[in-house]
Amino acid sequence: MKLADLPTPCLVLDRRVLARNIDRMAQAVGRLGVALRPHMKTAKSIDVARMVLANSAAPITGITVSTLAEAEYFAAHGITDILYAVGITPQKLDQVAKLNTAGADVKVITDDLDTARAISAHPGRLRALIEIDCGEARGGIAAEDPDLEAIAAALGPCLAGIMSHAGHSYSGRSVAEMADIAEAERRAALHAARRLRAAGMDCLMVSVGSSPTALHARALGGVTETRPGVYMFGDLFQAEIHTVEPDSIAVTVLASVIGRRPAENRIVIDAGGMALSKDRATGSAPHDYKFGLVLDLHGRRTYGASLVARANQEHGVVDLDTTAQFRIGDKVRVAPNHTCMTSAAHDRYSVGDDSDDVVAIWPRIGGW
Amino acid sequence: MKLADLPTPCLVLDRRVLARNIDRMAQAVGRLGVALRPHMKTAKSIDVARMVLANSAAPITGITVSTLAEAEYFAAHGITDILYAVGITPQKLDQVAKLNTAGADVKVITDDLDTARAISAHPGRLRALIEIDCGEARGGIAAEDPDLEAIAAALGPCLAGIMSHAGHSYSGRSVAEMADIAEAERRAALHAARRLRAAGMDCLMVSVGSSPTALHARALGGVTETRPGVYMFGDLFQAEIHTVEPDSIAVTVLASVIGRRPAENRIVIDAGGMALSKDRATGSAPHDYKFGLVLDLHGRRTYGASLVARANQEHGVVDLDTTAQFRIGDKVRVAPNHTCMTSAAHDRYSVGDDSDDVVAIWPRIGGW
Repeated sequence: MKLADLPTPCLVLDRRVLARNIDRMAQAVGRLGVALRPHMKTAKSIDVARMVLANSAAPITGITVSTLAEAEYFAAHGITDILYAVGITPQKLDQVAKLNTAGADVKVITDDLDTARAISAHPGRLRALIEIDCGEARGGIAAEDPDLEAIAAALGPCLAGIMSHAGHSYSGRSVAEMADIAEAERRAALHAARRLRAAGMDCLMVSVGSSPTALHARALGGVTETRPGVYMFGDLFQAEIHTVEPDSIAVTVLASVIGRRPAENRIVIDAGGMALSKDRATGSAPHDYKFGLVLDLHGRRTYGASLVARANQEHGVVDLDTTAQFRIGDKVRVAPNHTCMTSAAHDRYSVGDDSDDVVAIWPRIGGW
Repeated sequence: MKLADLPTPCLVLDRRVLARNIDRMAQAVGRLGVALRPHMKTAKSIDVARMVLANSAAPITGITVSTLAEAEYFAAHGITDILYAVGITPQKLDQVAKLNTAGADVKVITDDLDTARAISAHPGRLRALIEIDCGEARGGIAAEDPDLEAIAAALGPCLAGIMSHAGHSYSGRSVAEMADIAEAERRAALHAARRLRAAGMDCLMVSVGSSPTALHARALGGVTETRPGVYMFGDLFQAEIHTVEPDSIAVTVLASVIGRRPAENRIVIDAGGMALSKDRATGSAPHDYKFGLVLDLHGRRTYGASLVARANQEHGVVDLDTTAQFRIGDKVRVAPNHTCMTSAAHDRYSVGDDSDDVVAIWPRIGGW
């Protein structure tokens, strides 16, 4: 099938750009001498995971996931070393233990004493990392928190190490800022790891990372792995904060023109909030792309800064920055603000390459 | 299963509230002496559709859908009279014709002369309404547009009538404004219908509506049907604009506490952007509920104005407005800003009633 013949709206994944993004990060992480535990929360696809795992520029410890549905999916596809990087609840431990009994090694994270006790009291084979807050103010305790040793002791033999996520790197705007945040994250994680070791406990894993900090860290000595994810696809926001090059956005939404408003120099497309998401990440970036940047059918920036200015449920209203004329049914592609959210609206990728053909359909795993 | 035992995050539908919302709208539309063509874009569920169709307070002409996937789904479940209320493209006509050949009566909409020609030239059994813009500035031509008769003539025997959607009623803030917008929509639709009839053409259907205008219209004389949808569930935004009562939000997201930040009077829940959507509809409403209002496990406003202030992919950071203490694993429910977007993130409803039991699981149809 030709790209132009796909029913719209749908998600198009450019395999060449994906391969380039995967290699760029692997090279960067490899140069830092640290291992990669790629976060599959963005791609949610075994086919993408296989491409990431096949790149040998950096050693790979396993994968990271954001839901237990992802853990089940990737384990069923033979990827067993999995870090579930969202704070666990006692109620979810049975599901993790079941996966581990079946042969997986799903590690969980916690920053809570009661939960640590529940983990060590659970009859299943469970391992957990303690989450350290290095400035994001979301999950985790501070590296200096007096409870650290008590949580580790409560985990006992389930203790696998320390993890942190410098999600606040997304609010950095320069490479130097990202590097500073990466260094602060490294120091926080190492400080916590040292405290555990000083208390006589093992801390095998020191897991950090986000795409900006993995790419721009000056050094990651003492860290055992980094967990970037969104770099695989990139998006307008990540391009704004220098995690991907502007021409390295691998995922776009293919849409049809469904309305023409020549008097206002607007068109309406069949990609609205449902197909694009309502994420407005670039609202705080140097360039605000509203709900997405409109590209031509081939993914090129033919239409200047034509933006999806309004996103209703199934309608995207585009303010045109071009004199190009459109007919109903013409196809465009929309580069997303935030590829994690946009991709999540779709159940598959239509995979493109250097031809106009759809070379593969890759399913995605959604839900929880 | 008890509600409290559901894996989180998940979507909970209160069947009592749903029934009340369905009846309130049917009563209002019935009083106006017009028929209802409920829009299923919000619920996307045959179980919900059956509840709507079972209410006899207003006559029902059929249903409205926002995707061809919905059209296929509802037709497969025996609902045949369907209006696909998003501008059609010539490329999508085969799919519509196939449904109609199989026994459905899926009507499409257009505002474009070339597309009207493609509809009438298509060998399938197709019927189309001409979309009239009554002020929303999205789809449709103006009721005064000189092309109206030409489009109608191009449709020929495929012409089924006129449709409009006063989506700009969402920017109204008082019942009087909604009533004014409803009257303007009625006038625009009737003006277009009169023009067609004056040109000797049939205009059987005069289809209008949105939830605010269907509920608050003073009169709908001359209109044949109205197409509200979001009223079935309601949300924080619709409560703000008086389409539903504040205690009549039927759909909430059940979430678990996964983090505690007592020093900041915050908790973290496992409902983030993925489970809630990134829709910020109430950002322009009198009360801004950020990414959602946190309720207790039973859906009650026990925690004051505790709001999801940040929504990362799988993390919701809640600013608490309560002295209640939470443990990891405690359950809360989140009332959504925009139920269409939030519901779309989930593939099913866990249906509750006046007990703490889950009384049913109802699937949803997603995608395109």
